[in-house]
Amino acid sequence: MLVPARPIGTLPDAWRACVGTGRTREVLHADYRDSLEVVQDEIGFGATRAHGILHDDMGLVQPYDAAGFAGVRYGFAYVDLVIDTWLEAGLDPFLELGFMPAALASGDQTVFWWKGNVTPPRDHDAWAALVRALLRHLVDRYGIERVRTWPVEVWNEPNLETFWQGADEAAYHRLYAATARAVKDVDADIQVGGPAISPGSDDWLPRFADFVARDGAPCDFVSKHAYTTGPAQHVPFGVHQTLRPPQHLLEQFATPRDLLAGTALADLPVHITEFSSSYRPDNPIHDTAYQAAYLAPVLARGGEHVASFSYWTLCDVFEEVGIPTAPLHGGFGLLGHRQLRKPAFHLYSFMARLGSDVLASGEDHLVTRHADGRISALLWQPLDGSTTAERGHRVRLALPGAGSAVVVERHVDAERGNVRTAWQAMGSPLAPDHRATADLHDASAPAVRVSRVHAVDGVWHVSADLGRHGIALVEVTGSRDENPAWLTEDRLLGHADPTG
Amino acid sequence: MLVPARPIGTLPDAWRACVGTGRTREVLHADYRDSLEVVQDEIGFGATRAHGILHDDMGLVQPYDAAGFAGVRYGFAYVDLVIDTWLEAGLDPFLELGFMPAALASGDQTVFWWKGNVTPPRDHDAWAALVRALLRHLVDRYGIERVRTWPVEVWNEPNLETFWQGADEAAYHRLYAATARAVKDVDADIQVGGPAISPGSDDWLPRFADFVARDGAPCDFVSKHAYTTGPAQHVPFGVHQTLRPPQHLLEQFATPRDLLAGTALADLPVHITEFSSSYRPDNPIHDTAYQAAYLAPVLARGGEHVASFSYWTLCDVFEEVGIPTAPLHGGFGLLGHRQLRKPAFHLYSFMARLGSDVLASGEDHLVTRHADGRISALLWQPLDGSTTAERGHRVRLALPGAGSAVVVERHVDAERGNVRTAWQAMGSPLAPDHRATADLHDASAPAVRVSRVHAVDGVWHVSADLGRHGIALVEVTGSRDENPAWLTEDRLLGHADPTG
Amino acid sequence: MLVPARPIGTLPDAWRACVGTGRTREVLHADYRDSLEVVQDEIGFGATRAHGILHDDMGLVQPYDAAGFAGVRYGFAYVDLVIDTWLEAGLDPFLELGFMPAALASGDQTVFWWKGNVTPPRDHDAWAALVRALLRHLVDRYGIERVRTWPVEVWNEPNLETFWQGADEAAYHRLYAATARAVKDVDADIQVGGPAISPGSDDWLPRFADFVARDGAPCDFVSKHAYTTGPAQHVPFGVHQTLRPPQHLLEQFATPRDLLAGTALADLPVHITEFSSSYRPDNPIHDTAYQAAYLAPVLARGGEHVASFSYWTLCDVFEEVGIPTAPLHGGFGLLGHRQLRKPAFHLYSFMARLGSDVLASGEDHLVTRHADGRISALLWQPLDGSTTAERGHRVRLALPGAGSAVVVERHVDAERGNVRTAWQAMGSPLAPDHRATADLHDASAPAVRVSRVHAVDGVWHVSADLGRHGIALVEVTGSRDENPAWLTEDRLLGHADPTG
Amino acid sequence: MLVPARPIGTLPDAWRACVGTGRTREVLHADYRDSLEVVQDEIGFGATRAHGILHDDMGLVQPYDAAGFAGVRYGFAYVDLVIDTWLEAGLDPFLELGFMPAALASGDQTVFWWKGNVTPPRDHDAWAALVRALLRHLVDRYGIERVRTWPVEVWNEPNLETFWQGADEAAYHRLYAATARAVKDVDADIQVGGPAISPGSDDWLPRFADFVARDGAPCDFVSKHAYTTGPAQHVPFGVHQTLRPPQHLLEQFATPRDLLAGTALADLPVHITEFSSSYRPDNPIHDTAYQAAYLAPVLARGGEHVASFSYWTLCDVFEEVGIPTAPLHGGFGLLGHRQLRKPAFHLYSFMARLGSDVLASGEDHLVTRHADGRISALLWQPLDGSTTAERGHRVRLALPGAGSAVVVERHVDAERGNVRTAWQAMGSPLAPDHRATADLHDASAPAVRVSRVHAVDGVWHVSADLGRHGIALVEVTGSRDENPAWLTEDRLLGHADPTG
Repeated sequence: MLVPARPIGTLPDAWRACVGTGRTREVLHADYRDSLEVVQDEIGFGATRAHGILHDDMGLVQPYDAAGFAGVRYGFAYVDLVIDTWLEAGLDPFLELGFMPAALASGDQTVFWWKGNVTPPRDHDAWAALVRALLRHLVDRYGIERVRTWPVEVWNEPNLETFWQGADEAAYHRLYAATARAVKDVDADIQVGGPAISPGSDDWLPRFADFVARDGAPCDFVSKHAYTTGPAQHVPFGVHQTLRPPQHLLEQFATPRDLLAGTALADLPVHITEFSSSYRPDNPIHDTAYQAAYLAPVLARGGEHVASFSYWTLCDVFEEVGIPTAPLHGGFGLLGHRQLRKPAFHLYSFMARLGSDVLASGEDHLVTRHADGRISALLWQPLDGSTTAERGHRVRLALPGAGSAVVVERHVDAERGNVRTAWQAMGSPLAPDHRATADLHDASAPAVRVSRVHAVDGVWHVSADLGRHGIALVEVTGSRDENPAWLTEDRLLGHADPTG
Repeated sequence: MLVPARPIGTLPDAWRACVGTGRTREVLHADYRDSLEVVQDEIGFGATRAHGILHDDMGLVQPYDAAGFAGVRYGFAYVDLVIDTWLEAGLDPFLELGFMPAALASGDQTVFWWKGNVTPPRDHDAWAALVRALLRHLVDRYGIERVRTWPVEVWNEPNLETFWQGADEAAYHRLYAATARAVKDVDADIQVGGPAISPGSDDWLPRFADFVARDGAPCDFVSKHAYTTGPAQHVPFGVHQTLRPPQHLLEQFATPRDLLAGTALADLPVHITEFSSSYRPDNPIHDTAYQAAYLAPVLARGGEHVASFSYWTLCDVFEEVGIPTAPLHGGFGLLGHRQLRKPAFHLYSFMARLGSDVLASGEDHLVTRHADGRISALLWQPLDGSTTAERGHRVRLALPGAGSAVVVERHVDAERGNVRTAWQAMGSPLAPDHRATADLHDASAPAVRVSRVHAVDGVWHVSADLGRHGIALVEVTGSRDENPAWLTEDRLLGHADPTG
Repeated sequence: MLVPARPIGTLPDAWRACVGTGRTREVLHADYRDSLEVVQDEIGFGATRAHGILHDDMGLVQPYDAAGFAGVRYGFAYVDLVIDTWLEAGLDPFLELGFMPAALASGDQTVFWWKGNVTPPRDHDAWAALVRALLRHLVDRYGIERVRTWPVEVWNEPNLETFWQGADEAAYHRLYAATARAVKDVDADIQVGGPAISPGSDDWLPRFADFVARDGAPCDFVSKHAYTTGPAQHVPFGVHQTLRPPQHLLEQFATPRDLLAGTALADLPVHITEFSSSYRPDNPIHDTAYQAAYLAPVLARGGEHVASFSYWTLCDVFEEVGIPTAPLHGGFGLLGHRQLRKPAFHLYSFMARLGSDVLASGEDHLVTRHADGRISALLWQPLDGSTTAERGHRVRLALPGAGSAVVVERHVDAERGNVRTAWQAMGSPLAPDHRATADLHDASAPAVRVSRVHAVDGVWHVSADLGRHGIALVEVTGSRDENPAWLTEDRLLGHADPTG
Repeated sequence: MLVPARPIGTLPDAWRACVGTGRTREVLHADYRDSLEVVQDEIGFGATRAHGILHDDMGLVQPYDAAGFAGVRYGFAYVDLVIDTWLEAGLDPFLELGFMPAALASGDQTVFWWKGNVTPPRDHDAWAALVRALLRHLVDRYGIERVRTWPVEVWNEPNLETFWQGADEAAYHRLYAATARAVKDVDADIQVGGPAISPGSDDWLPRFADFVARDGAPCDFVSKHAYTTGPAQHVPFGVHQTLRPPQHLLEQFATPRDLLAGTALADLPVHITEFSSSYRPDNPIHDTAYQAAYLAPVLARGGEHVASFSYWTLCDVFEEVGIPTAPLHGGFGLLGHRQLRKPAFHLYSFMARLGSDVLASGEDHLVTRHADGRISALLWQPLDGSTTAERGHRVRLALPGAGSAVVVERHVDAERGNVRTAWQAMGSPLAPDHRATADLHDASAPAVRVSRVHAVDGVWHVSADLGRHGIALVEVTGSRDENPAWLTEDRLLGHADPTG
């Protein structure tokens, strides 16, 4: 493929604008914090979104009644620890408001192993007071300038009965309006939005637009989720699911623009606040190279449709269906427990090394250039979600260049840089010992190859052999040869001495 | 007080053999891990004991039934993380077996905000299988030599109805026997013991000895708890309680030796697996200098009675009555949230700097000498638990010495090195910002004073003025004056120049 | 003193724009790097200037002649390590070009224990080639945008025979012109300047302006040094010197503006590229609280005269008169060996906590306000350099405020926060052991006091008692009292129970 | 090769008992300290030996004469920093006493770019006083127990004129006797020895034994050096040299035993205080995989002959022939600048992972077993020093085993895990930028392969394909397959659902 010398566009930051965290409380886990450090060091997301900041395990709403004193105290100890942790890692919060504190809940329906309450508030004024108290505290502690950049999303997947009692749309609209107004009571420039729906319910979007228009509730962005799997076929500690083609994700990204055209929400930013292949935290696909190659074209193109699309999730500290029993268990994370790098992690770390100018974008490649002139390309084997490739894939790049260049290739595929393949070769141990864990870390490093190429007629010809389910980062940098005339390999053992 | 030159004894390590951790799961918290690092760096405990290693939030017992496969999987992911964390910090586990996993429980009575199940096993064989599986896993992962040094204690405070359904003594004996035999099935040299009773039920001890003798159940150590407070007078987010004199703690330490004399358990090691002034995690006394001065004589003398006495707890990551709402909230910890050093922390850090030879031990002092000859003394104001001292206390030491010496004093009292006093001066903020937190850290450092003393007739006279509720560490090291003849302060501004 | 509510000006960053480093090669020392981390963490300088980047111990100029190949290789290994170290610490280089590489030197006169060659180049073309090669390399490695912010100063104190053979002014002008043109050959926007003269030779300035005007040599800034000591009265490993009043430093800062008025250099930035009380690296004054209080008014006002004034130096890794034989030896550094914080370090760390709005500035105070409204004041005891104060100094501030506030005071004086006083009390040990070094660190921490103040008629009355030779940072922050009604100290021991 | 199940011996620790450091002062370099951390983390040497602890750049001997005071001060600031650095890294000093401080030297002959003085003391009493002062200080600071484990070696290669004026044997004997007696004056149990000769002068050994016997000078060990290269053929910034076979190193190790048989030194420990292929710090062989494979049999067998053999050196912070101009420059180090791991580093890190029981030892393998039963083998391609292998080498191991096992292979060869190959592919840049340096780090990681093997007739058949100039670590651990019955790769995309 002949890559032009002139950029065809700019790579938007939407792919790393946000990443998912499971439960807010899990941010307090040491293993999460360790993972956060790795992820931010090698990828550098801009924000993160987590469930349950209002869940009782955060200690935010604490009624008291003793010694003649009664009232509610807002306890910010854990909220502050969570947000401090994120900010220290360079992440802003993308605030999702939920679930319902027991003291405010109208019912006792819960979701997840950790029992998030999914019922509407008993008293919308008390709810609004809580929202205001939380945001005022954040403004006091972190400053208004910062908080204005933290989007506030109202609830999570209210279109599902498991997440919102009865999937009651009117009740959601009421909650949305109360919340949005409470947010704006604190500051008119804090951004609020919704409806945070799961795939398959896009019909909520125009009705949400109608409601907002009718009600006059503030709305600064629209949010939804995107996944491509079929129904869960359960096995112990896992599921299997079919997959639609990756293009289906891009189509899901695109619907808000289409469906909201002509409404008051038409020009608002769209945030995909969760996406992945599977919506299950126990599908082994998440741990494979297949996942990486399958999602590569989505990362390459997603920014054409939305302001952010947030990988669900950054690591496997995640307990919605219980506590994981194996280091790799089909969890959502880019990282497994103890910071094991999965192939999808490398996909993101490769993306993080691309330049801002796009030179070429196609079905198996995204070629970019940096300000200093070097070229970085993300390559992948095209996968359709329903068939397993039998072998790898070759990509040939004809890059604009002069003189000689260094080519650094990094490969991850079904064999290389693949922690799951190594783990399976070990016998899939549920509790690998320290040595085995260290071996898994070593085995998860991408294979690196350094070579030189010399331009022919203004072109550097680079050919990359991707392995099965492979992705690769290819970096090409012009470089002169500084090896001096007096040094040659054939004199290494001292034999010849032409100058002696 | 004239301190003799010849040691009167050796300081046993019982005071730092063990320290308490709240809930096993809390070990996964980043703030706990940060606290652990500080505590181990400055104190260096030998082991730690925590509730709830078998509680469902550890994910240990996971039944499954799907796709035609059914059974129980033991999930060690979190147990391993916990024990790895301790070992990396130089702490061994003091294993407390409890609470009951839901899959094994005979009832649904729970204790604490985090709902530990306190009912006997439905099936003692399944319980024994769990105990064996846990210990075998630990042996596989950490080696048998190590596990043999990890005491296994059966349950927690079974004499209280809140901790053991009905405070059923026979049921406890049955659980104890089943557990102890399961432990020994794994290895005969792993240490097992009980009955882990709370204060006021020492009558359980002889009956426990009887049972063990009768039943033939293995028993390697005896354990109990010690506290000195009266009933809780509740206020919101806190309690007030009266205190007995600190000597009462030493008396509680001493009872097993007395009560078990003549039984088969007579010569076993006694472990006080919890102690403090108050048994409530919301009594402000824990945060005060009073606590430090009050406990000083207990730390100084406790090792004369027992093999270990374990301060409950190392830090305020602790949720038995809910999630703390303030950085200082009367929690059990030596450290508050974010590693704020309380006066009791300094008491332990002072103890950690004492030498192994005891030169003198009295009502306000413990004077020790190190192998290299320097002298370290812990001093305190005697407090009786019922009265508040109005002013400080002076201690005069006449130490054996020759020539000159450096005296380094470190003071903590109602004013100095007192994080709570500083926090109250700040207005007791529930959520101090980063700057205030940093100021609290600075304010919690002991006051340091360096001076010189010259021996008179073989004695270094050192006088230390303790503040109100004060403790002090006084370190005296022989040292010659190396200041050269040519340097004098009066020439600092260049005036005189006798040699010019 | 009544402090107005409205700012009288803004505090310029000149005081921390730059700090001195001894010898470029010393940047490679681990102890320097450790010191750098402490200094940047607590102070945060913008740049640093060091001698000897061209000295042979940096390995920059390496002639070769072997096996029939001859030439010069520029070796950037150490230069890169040095600059990487600075940049990682957040410091930009303020490049001082010197001393002369042996391969280029016209003579063999050297300066310092480490023998910097102070003779002019044998060949000014070879010199210019070296300057170009160095700057081109820096541009290649760090980017042109960055290098344009790195001032290039030509040589050091050419007005002294010890630093420039014969103090030959014409030879310096020739070197300057060659260097400045070589710099601009690389990029017209890299800043170049001189003449980097020592105190007492301000007559060089107008002649330098004349030369530049006549010759057309580029010049972007003017630099000189400022010290206030009299002649050195030598003792072993030290000197004593008289001191002029601190105002003399400000007067030295001001002369370039006056002397260059009307010349082509009139409006250029002035950089004081070295200043302190004494110009000797073995004057004990540097280690005292006297130094801190003496320099406080200079830090407070220096920015009114110059673009930067660079404390000479950041730490005691410094070998001009040989290798230090004691942890405190009168070295220039803010930090002694092993990061011992001297009083002058605290002066800088206090400055670093001031706000940007100046509310009041006087003979013993600099009162500032931050964007968030809190007030920070630097206070000091006025000292004249010739007399030793017998006692401390009280400062009373009447600050604009409402409601209650927290007052946090930090004190450093002849007793408190004074590492030298503690070290002398130890007997001035030349090689303190690890424990003594740790004690010195503890003893060097400023004394902290937290209190509350309540506004009376819109004024917070704050009175600070400075110790002898004292400086203080006083921070006043409005704060409501959150201590709840149900908590009172008199119930700590459980006695009263009015609510029970 | 059929490996027996029963050990044939134990692997002595001689290979890692000691490692070389260039110059004592270089220990103060940050890059050295960073390298030390890497080396100790992955290899864990026991001690290190460096030149020049007495050289003037350590500031140890400082005469003074001012203001009527004259004398010598011993300055321990840098010596203490050096030894603290080593001890913190877990390394003991192997003290080499040299070179001559200027204040004590009888002449001005120097060696190296950094000008170590190689002349005898002007006054042997002053020399002895210095030796005593140094050792007494070490005893005071680090304790006598520790210092007794630190061997003291007298001078370096006195048999060479460059290192000892005139290679004067009698003068060396005199120095030796004075030094040894001074050492024993401090403590009779501090170990002292010599004569630290370079290869080719073994005739010094019996004469040294004679002298010691005759003179009665104390001697606790015998030391010498071993290298296998021919004469240096110089090119700019480098040399080429011929190599003898690696067995020649083992022969050099063996000579002291033979030559000293029957003398008083016959049973003393022998320390090879320096060894490598080449004795030049600019021979590119040091950076190659050839070096690793060539030295592998020496590491495997060296401990059969001597108590220690110390690789010269741990890293490339080394300046004997000047300051290196490239990240890889043929330096002695296991690590290049900025911690680049050379193949020889991996040889040592592979050795560090071997077990203590030797199962088999041959021309291309060393097979060991750990206490826990797993097997670790070091494999290498046999190389003779004079020929370059054209291709790799296969090793087949038949290991005693039952059931299945995990096989983890790590390979380093002319292509894999080879920083030099990658650097050359980059064009041998003298000053690689940060990105290139990071790529070199990635490229220097050994290739990892994880597989499973199933025992056949009690044997695990493992075949390892070494690359050209290859070494490999093969670790084989018995392991059952925990992959559950319900998980199969063919259901990853959800197609089949036999259990649904």
